[in-house]
Amino acid sequence: MIRVTVWNENVHEKLNEKIAAIYPKGIHGAIAEGIASEGVQIRTATLEQPEHGLTEEVLNDTDVLIWWGHRAHKDVSDEIVNRVHDRVLKGMGLIVLHSGHFSKIFKKLMGTSCDLKWREQGDKERLWVVDPAHPIAEGLGQYFEIEHEEMYGEHFDIPAPDELVFISWFEGGEVFRSGCTYHRGNGKVFYFRPGHETYPTYHNKDVLRVISNAVNWAAPRHGIRQTYGNAKPLEPIKGQQ
Amino acid sequence: MIRVTVWNENVHEKLNEKIAAIYPKGIHGAIAEGIASEGVQIRTATLEQPEHGLTEEVLNDTDVLIWWGHRAHKDVSDEIVNRVHDRVLKGMGLIVLHSGHFSKIFKKLMGTSCDLKWREQGDKERLWVVDPAHPIAEGLGQYFEIEHEEMYGEHFDIPAPDELVFISWFEGGEVFRSGCTYHRGNGKVFYFRPGHETYPTYHNKDVLRVISNAVNWAAPRHGIRQTYGNAKPLEPIKGQQ
Amino acid sequence: MIRVTVWNENVHEKLNEKIAAIYPKGIHGAIAEGIASEGVQIRTATLEQPEHGLTEEVLNDTDVLIWWGHRAHKDVSDEIVNRVHDRVLKGMGLIVLHSGHFSKIFKKLMGTSCDLKWREQGDKERLWVVDPAHPIAEGLGQYFEIEHEEMYGEHFDIPAPDELVFISWFEGGEVFRSGCTYHRGNGKVFYFRPGHETYPTYHNKDVLRVISNAVNWAAPRHGIRQTYGNAKPLEPIKGQQ
Amino acid sequence: MIRVTVWNENVHEKLNEKIAAIYPKGIHGAIAEGIASEGVQIRTATLEQPEHGLTEEVLNDTDVLIWWGHRAHKDVSDEIVNRVHDRVLKGMGLIVLHSGHFSKIFKKLMGTSCDLKWREQGDKERLWVVDPAHPIAEGLGQYFEIEHEEMYGEHFDIPAPDELVFISWFEGGEVFRSGCTYHRGNGKVFYFRPGHETYPTYHNKDVLRVISNAVNWAAPRHGIRQTYGNAKPLEPIKGQQ
Repeated sequence: MIRVTVWNENVHEKLNEKIAAIYPKGIHGAIAEGIASEGVQIRTATLEQPEHGLTEEVLNDTDVLIWWGHRAHKDVSDEIVNRVHDRVLKGMGLIVLHSGHFSKIFKKLMGTSCDLKWREQGDKERLWVVDPAHPIAEGLGQYFEIEHEEMYGEHFDIPAPDELVFISWFEGGEVFRSGCTYHRGNGKVFYFRPGHETYPTYHNKDVLRVISNAVNWAAPRHGIRQTYGNAKPLEPIKGQQ
Repeated sequence: MIRVTVWNENVHEKLNEKIAAIYPKGIHGAIAEGIASEGVQIRTATLEQPEHGLTEEVLNDTDVLIWWGHRAHKDVSDEIVNRVHDRVLKGMGLIVLHSGHFSKIFKKLMGTSCDLKWREQGDKERLWVVDPAHPIAEGLGQYFEIEHEEMYGEHFDIPAPDELVFISWFEGGEVFRSGCTYHRGNGKVFYFRPGHETYPTYHNKDVLRVISNAVNWAAPRHGIRQTYGNAKPLEPIKGQQ
Repeated sequence: MIRVTVWNENVHEKLNEKIAAIYPKGIHGAIAEGIASEGVQIRTATLEQPEHGLTEEVLNDTDVLIWWGHRAHKDVSDEIVNRVHDRVLKGMGLIVLHSGHFSKIFKKLMGTSCDLKWREQGDKERLWVVDPAHPIAEGLGQYFEIEHEEMYGEHFDIPAPDELVFISWFEGGEVFRSGCTYHRGNGKVFYFRPGHETYPTYHNKDVLRVISNAVNWAAPRHGIRQTYGNAKPLEPIKGQQ
Repeated sequence: MIRVTVWNENVHEKLNEKIAAIYPKGIHGAIAEGIASEGVQIRTATLEQPEHGLTEEVLNDTDVLIWWGHRAHKDVSDEIVNRVHDRVLKGMGLIVLHSGHFSKIFKKLMGTSCDLKWREQGDKERLWVVDPAHPIAEGLGQYFEIEHEEMYGEHFDIPAPDELVFISWFEGGEVFRSGCTYHRGNGKVFYFRPGHETYPTYHNKDVLRVISNAVNWAAPRHGIRQTYGNAKPLEPIKGQQ
């Protein structure tokens, strides 16, 4: 049983009727419903909750955290960001969606600006699978399409991904590294591009399949407890000191 | 002509006679002398200088910054760290040495704890070249040795390097990824393990050769000026909005 | 249920009493017994069988193939090598053990000489986990040891692995990239170093755990059927012919 | 001084007047002229020459080999392919262009099918720089365009590149990993997509700049002479034999 927490800032849904109509239970609600299955136990958490819903208890009880944010990145407290960061390094999986590229937690884990090009003009997006052996691409076709999406274009200022799973083609002439995996400490991180709030992207079955696959990929099992710091020799040393 | 700035916290050298005897001109002085050559123009900077010697002018005039720090990581101001970080993303090369693994700038660029095992017992270290095609390994033998060094052992909590150039063998039974390259934004970063302050490591010709090679590898040339943010379409879009 | 085929040239076991005493059921038998579990269905195949036991039927019914060879690499027919190669690109997992580094199938998949240094002198080997987030390292400690093994030393002439999971320390002064993952087409490949025929390495529980983990990692699920060749446009083209 | 050999099968140019009109000196001639500069010494070689113009003497005198082939891949002798392969592993750089993806030498170095989708319909191609720190992208803009080219589309069945420098956008709806680097042994390999024979691609200044940059990147300097095989211990071993 993989324990998933879907986090959403849940701001657009309250301010904009059109968005609320697309996501009546919030983006978090749509994702939680969309990836529900037997092997997964899901809860949601949002910005307005105490500690943004991400208490020590919740995080310790989370195998994979899914993150959607956009307007309110700056309102996420540094303390919670550090707590999530620490949990990732200890083994929790993290799936960062769309505009989460500019979240504090993603920038902290990447070490770069995470900047990119964007355009809200309803481009068609076609996501090509470039690593068909990857478990995150399991069960997809050679590509899948999203009829209308916000465009994100290169250069995307991220570290070269450990594995590049998807590349997006956009109608307006751009490309984007849309599915990127990273190991950070004991934890796994997956960035997945689609999901602008004004489109019904999280009702798309291919998008949901990718998120489900990523949950399975990112979930830790037994883990390893490293030790750090001053270490006794395992073999005899002739050296001085 | 590559413009290099060698930065050193320059603390141990003032507090400890033995260290001062090994590095009478400071670690920065030894490195600056050791990598001097026709194609390189070198200056040094230290923690105690105004703005730690890393003013906007100095950084804008620097192609490659070399960083040595240990005791005083916390005394480096966040403002300067952010300035260096910004310059790396814009194209400046950065070479982080030894205990610099725990510097603010390295941790910020890596996004992980950068923790490791260590032991000050004069282990013999043998650095094996595992990527012989890499320019940073140019001119070396299959391995080189340092008679006595501080041990650093795995697990080293860093992102998987873009390229792994050296792996160290230690007498006491550990291994370490000792030469790691990363691209971050427009800039190149090289982490190189050797260089504990109590050993004459920066007088070792192989160590100096690696640092010289890394300076050449990390130096930017023409660069690329990205633009980010809202972007007009390059092709017609049928999409709504 | 993952369908595993353990392939072994099964030559040393017949020629040398000491080796036969260590592996009375052959290296393939020891591995098959050692990784037996509920979720895995295992068969073995050996060089002397018709088509080396690797008929089209067997390979089509295999999710993960484990390969041990040493003395008889040249006796494996090119036709079977091509068949295995084709199956890997179509999705079958492949785990290559120890002296399999010089097998035809591994060299064909890697594209390099796969050469290395070696020594049969019973060195102690200590395998350090350098990617603790990797599923192949699940459940291990920070390192594990093999009291006596053949030494393999760098430079190991392989492509830089997609992921480096283990680095070995050897008593005699060498290091080695001992656990290397690769995606090739739809298939996953794992090279794992230990397992010289004169030592009881495949009775070691950590070694067996790694192989079990690798079976789980390498097993394909749904897969993707690519098409290649002449492709019709998905969008209108203004271009001339 | 970097010694470059531009190899071309030189078949299309003889069979097709339109192609001969675009490349009156052959594709090899156009490239040789296009990348000529002070630091480079260039010769050409073609299929019809004895040993395809790639004698031991020529290869030993070559730092970087550029390869264009299409119709006549099967006519390249295995002996010469093995010779080139051996030279790459010993340190010679290799730049494989466009339809060279299906050459014997590229497939041998990659270990995969190197298959892809294609279409000859004059798609517009736009190559985006995704690794702006890479020396092969030096001096380019954020992207460059080729008005009409043959389309190559994913999935491109290659190993994940060590570094991905360019991604192509095609008018007809596809994407492609267009600039891929690999280290193989002591040698560096760069695959660069553009260059169908029916378009004047090798007269395009950005394309030529990329090839020039790649020549500089791929050229070996001092190199390292590895030894392989039976190795004496560097440290004392307690182990048995």
